[in-house]
Amino acid sequence: MPSETEVPAGQIRPADSGGRDAFPHRHLLSIAHLKPWEIRFLLDEAEHWVGVNRGAAQKHDDRLAGLTQINAFFENSTRTLLSFEIAGKRLGADVVNMHAAQSSVKKGETLIDTAVTLNAMHADVIVIRHGSSGAVQLIADKVDCPVLNAGDGWHEHPTQALLDALTIRRRRGFIEGQIVTICGDVLHSRVARSNMLCLAALGAQVRVVAPPTLMPAAVECMGATPYTRFDEALAGSDVVMMLRLQNERMDGAFIPSPREYHALYGLTPERLAIAKPDALVMHPGPMNRGVEITSGVADDPDRSAITEQVEMGVAVRMACLDVLTRSARGVEGWT
Amino acid sequence: MPSETEVPAGQIRPADSGGRDAFPHRHLLSIAHLKPWEIRFLLDEAEHWVGVNRGAAQKHDDRLAGLTQINAFFENSTRTLLSFEIAGKRLGADVVNMHAAQSSVKKGETLIDTAVTLNAMHADVIVIRHGSSGAVQLIADKVDCPVLNAGDGWHEHPTQALLDALTIRRRRGFIEGQIVTICGDVLHSRVARSNMLCLAALGAQVRVVAPPTLMPAAVECMGATPYTRFDEALAGSDVVMMLRLQNERMDGAFIPSPREYHALYGLTPERLAIAKPDALVMHPGPMNRGVEITSGVADDPDRSAITEQVEMGVAVRMACLDVLTRSARGVEGWT
Amino acid sequence: MPSETEVPAGQIRPADSGGRDAFPHRHLLSIAHLKPWEIRFLLDEAEHWVGVNRGAAQKHDDRLAGLTQINAFFENSTRTLLSFEIAGKRLGADVVNMHAAQSSVKKGETLIDTAVTLNAMHADVIVIRHGSSGAVQLIADKVDCPVLNAGDGWHEHPTQALLDALTIRRRRGFIEGQIVTICGDVLHSRVARSNMLCLAALGAQVRVVAPPTLMPAAVECMGATPYTRFDEALAGSDVVMMLRLQNERMDGAFIPSPREYHALYGLTPERLAIAKPDALVMHPGPMNRGVEITSGVADDPDRSAITEQVEMGVAVRMACLDVLTRSARGVEGWT
Repeated sequence: MPSETEVPAGQIRPADSGGRDAFPHRHLLSIAHLKPWEIRFLLDEAEHWVGVNRGAAQKHDDRLAGLTQINAFFENSTRTLLSFEIAGKRLGADVVNMHAAQSSVKKGETLIDTAVTLNAMHADVIVIRHGSSGAVQLIADKVDCPVLNAGDGWHEHPTQALLDALTIRRRRGFIEGQIVTICGDVLHSRVARSNMLCLAALGAQVRVVAPPTLMPAAVECMGATPYTRFDEALAGSDVVMMLRLQNERMDGAFIPSPREYHALYGLTPERLAIAKPDALVMHPGPMNRGVEITSGVADDPDRSAITEQVEMGVAVRMACLDVLTRSARGVEGWT
Repeated sequence: MPSETEVPAGQIRPADSGGRDAFPHRHLLSIAHLKPWEIRFLLDEAEHWVGVNRGAAQKHDDRLAGLTQINAFFENSTRTLLSFEIAGKRLGADVVNMHAAQSSVKKGETLIDTAVTLNAMHADVIVIRHGSSGAVQLIADKVDCPVLNAGDGWHEHPTQALLDALTIRRRRGFIEGQIVTICGDVLHSRVARSNMLCLAALGAQVRVVAPPTLMPAAVECMGATPYTRFDEALAGSDVVMMLRLQNERMDGAFIPSPREYHALYGLTPERLAIAKPDALVMHPGPMNRGVEITSGVADDPDRSAITEQVEMGVAVRMACLDVLTRSARGVEGWT
Repeated sequence: MPSETEVPAGQIRPADSGGRDAFPHRHLLSIAHLKPWEIRFLLDEAEHWVGVNRGAAQKHDDRLAGLTQINAFFENSTRTLLSFEIAGKRLGADVVNMHAAQSSVKKGETLIDTAVTLNAMHADVIVIRHGSSGAVQLIADKVDCPVLNAGDGWHEHPTQALLDALTIRRRRGFIEGQIVTICGDVLHSRVARSNMLCLAALGAQVRVVAPPTLMPAAVECMGATPYTRFDEALAGSDVVMMLRLQNERMDGAFIPSPREYHALYGLTPERLAIAKPDALVMHPGPMNRGVEITSGVADDPDRSAITEQVEMGVAVRMACLDVLTRSARGVEGWT
């Protein structure tokens, strides 16, 4: 585990940045758009904030003072919203939440009109969660400020993948060559999608496990190997990443019942024993204990990294908010 | 268009202030209570904030630091709430939102008890939105701090009228003598009401167009001329202000159908051609595209001022929050 | 009434602190855990904030700057949330609200997982409201920071009892020996429970009045004397504290009807005349006017302390937030 304060934010020119003067993206919409060094740069920046957040003293940093951050959540997500809100406030931004449930969207306004409205209020950074894939891109095209994707439909959830990568890197020391097994409803999971892309880019060997009805076509294109039998995928795994089973799919067409799902794809201590002896257990939360994961595994202090994922989430989001607003603040990416 | 930073906030004694030492109102409840010079003074103050908000540097101003602004919204309105919240936070206030959906109101508390409660928490300024005309006045009577009306029933929405006037003044250079046509559900519109009063006070010639079922009696008393045929009203107009058709009136007693409404009162490029060649198009948002306005008109970069209205909204609200809290902050209105 | 600014926050070592160096509790979960001197210490601290909040000048104090306060409300309560939010913001904290209605709780997450999540985000103080007795204790056991109970089930609501005690002390000069009558649905009331414990600890003589169906067993253990006839309890009372009749109990098993309840247990001017001539009237709000209390009593400027209770609420919460975060901030409790 690297020393937590060794990386001063924004002070390091990545070795493989190819002569770039700064992080070369205006928005953070997906992992698919990021080069490996760009992912690593964001992880390095996040390390700085892990140290700040853990410090007993001042967690507050005023680098975003005077900037307006709008969190526009068209889909409820308490955890992600909380994480982005805390991240922005710790950086000194004026953070404003827009809840879809009370919004003009309900009055029939188009998404583009909402985007144009937020832009006209001179937002400096907009964080968006939306139920439709591509909606965040649509908004990003219409505004003058950086946009962060906080999850869009089945598409991507880039900060989740970054926090997962940071967690693995800190707990295992490195990512390259790690065998990471992702298990659950891969088909409908933006978390799985962003993680496959991110981990493959960083050199991990990614396996995905899902019931046949919940396995997308062509996971190989995202750098992953598909499995239908959980035990096969587990053998030799360094990391086991369980996905949340959405309530709306718990019965009906996709799976016979939560009980049967648990029998085939739930992570139990017995099943975890098939993976490497020190394999890490991860879950994006909130967990359905007894469905996709048992308490014995989730609460194992040595193996489970689930609460550390939450912690890394705030640090990663602080890094992204900082990096993406640098050019507007007249700050160079690295010096 | 005037230079955006020419007016330092609070530094200008209006020529026709009649020897007053400061803005002479404690609350901003309606346009009907304001004299023309008072309206112009608020618009001049808002110009200052337009410049600040557009500046690349620090948008934050700490003049309301230490003051508590409570936004008590008894009726949902994402845009207006967002605009007031951003305005208050940019001025450094501690901004707290009270959402009616979660409030004591649901528990049967009287409006006066709610007012007394907010006052006892030592609010320094209260922004209120309420579904009943006069509710804001009732609250203002019971509290020790300035109250801003963010829309009450069919009565008034003064900051909307101010931001509309500011938009017109900036785009057309002046308001006096401008022919402004307001079209839509005038009967139920506090936006129309406040605009008629504001524009008439500033010397504009105001025309209102509505289906006979949605035209209030005695618009002449508010300084406007009524029309039932849209095309007649459009002829010679400098500004066309479309009102939002509320969903709840879209079918049933008031109008036959959205389609028929569109045919008679929707603003299309063809119809806009009847107005002056450089006529400005305005809409308070959110728009029902294809009902009261077509996309061809709404998105016309030269003619539409709709996104500028949103921008002016934040500036106007910053000006109102600043001006109304001056006496509590020990600041003179002008020097 | 003591001079409001005589007590500089955190500067007074209580005479009976028994040589302690600081307030000896990490959390504020209940009144039952507090010794009389600890209650008095919190009231003395709150006096400081009453003075600050009433001051015309700066109400803002930055002692919690850089700290993250999470208000996790699993049960709606606009007033209490508003009070804690204002208290935290006035102290400079980064305040974040988590609303249960939008939360992971709805997704089946366990309470402990929610606690662990909030903790992993490095909250510095967590304020919790929950519908189940004991839920707040459960969360407090799982986190590294101070937890404040903002009401849990039928158990306790300690800051409400503190603000009530402060109100009585300021209006009557002292609490010892005062006869305080609490009337209403005592069985389901955490307000009644915390008040019985708090007032008894401070030496008051507490009487509780309730319909037989709404009187808990063994109120004597909490230091109170039970009555079923309101008039008997009122005779000689210095303070009459009315409880809110919850809507969900207004008809059905517990009481015949609001009208009959009012006849037997509603506080009217006639009934108040039975108490001491200068008896104080209190209510935690929101009131059901005409049910448990009439307007004639609630609005009596000399007798009613209801709005003062709201005011004291903010001051008491500022004191609790300040005191509980002292050790994390490296500040001694008193010097």
